[in-house]
Amino acid sequence: MLKEMLIKNRSYRRYDAGFTVPEETLCELIGLARYINSSANKQALRFRPVCEAALREKLFAVTRWAKLLENYSGPQEHERPGGYIVICRDAAVWPNAATLEKDVGVAAAAITLGAVEKGLGCCMINNFSAQGCREALELPETLEPALVVAIGKPAEEIILEDAKTGGDTKYYRDENGVHHVPKLSLDKLII
Amino acid sequence: MLKEMLIKNRSYRRYDAGFTVPEETLCELIGLARYINSSANKQALRFRPVCEAALREKLFAVTRWAKLLENYSGPQEHERPGGYIVICRDAAVWPNAATLEKDVGVAAAAITLGAVEKGLGCCMINNFSAQGCREALELPETLEPALVVAIGKPAEEIILEDAKTGGDTKYYRDENGVHHVPKLSLDKLII
Repeated sequence: MLKEMLIKNRSYRRYDAGFTVPEETLCELIGLARYINSSANKQALRFRPVCEAALREKLFAVTRWAKLLENYSGPQEHERPGGYIVICRDAAVWPNAATLEKDVGVAAAAITLGAVEKGLGCCMINNFSAQGCREALELPETLEPALVVAIGKPAEEIILEDAKTGGDTKYYRDENGVHHVPKLSLDKLII
Repeated sequence: MLKEMLIKNRSYRRYDAGFTVPEETLCELIGLARYINSSANKQALRFRPVCEAALREKLFAVTRWAKLLENYSGPQEHERPGGYIVICRDAAVWPNAATLEKDVGVAAAAITLGAVEKGLGCCMINNFSAQGCREALELPETLEPALVVAIGKPAEEIILEDAKTGGDTKYYRDENGVHHVPKLSLDKLII
């Protein structure tokens, strides 16, 4: 059931760093993104799997995590993801970056749901240095990194809960370190 | 299996116009988008289900379909979708529209995969008049229509095929009216 997969598909920020995601698994996930609906079928997205430890470290250094958590600077060394897929726009195929943003989201959904199906977890990281990412991965100039998807074996509990009336949607960690994510009720989303 | 759902999740442009998607079904699909990963968990997207015939007609009039097909002005009357979900950005929640584009894509993926699960089909329509859409649906000013998702009972065959070397990715209809969508091979997508 898709609903269960969507509920399981949370933004994990603590992983078992001892588990490296095999490159083959990352490529299988990219293979899912091959089938997505693409604006004018241009297929202007390119995907960089990252599983080698030294590269993961370099990439991690240019990402920023969970800006809503106070006194938090991202996963500690033993909590870091065992792999990444960096989604890039290929300007040589389609120069208008803005048009491709929705495609990036659709691709990220396919990849992260695919990870859930494999018993893994992800975090879509929009807050990163594109220039730093390009340098770390030695990407060609025509490729613009659009989204970093962290992937790994989750090592935290995340609870979806109903946002309270008045509706602060800020996520938080409770005293036991459990991560809570308040979601608006359906009637708030429907116009 | 997610892969099969992604393959089935094509961009349909011919539907059985005799089938109206019940409002309840549209709301169930919006319910799936409730669980998506959301930038900073802001949940700044709002969703307008459209199933009433007169409203569907008004909305259809402000959409543009399949610009790559020659001599084609969109689905004929008997081929039109039996429902829509219009995904809007709520500027009162998050004024920066660009940041939300990926969220729109992630939401659209959830909605369209959900439709596949229900035996329906969709088309994400990015080419439409936002102002026309706002007027047709009498949307409040803070809501900016970001994507129109057409939904219905598909009435066409769509074949995914491998793009030829050299790689024209333009979709086309063959002499039997079958719609073909050339997809790049996986090695072209991986950096």
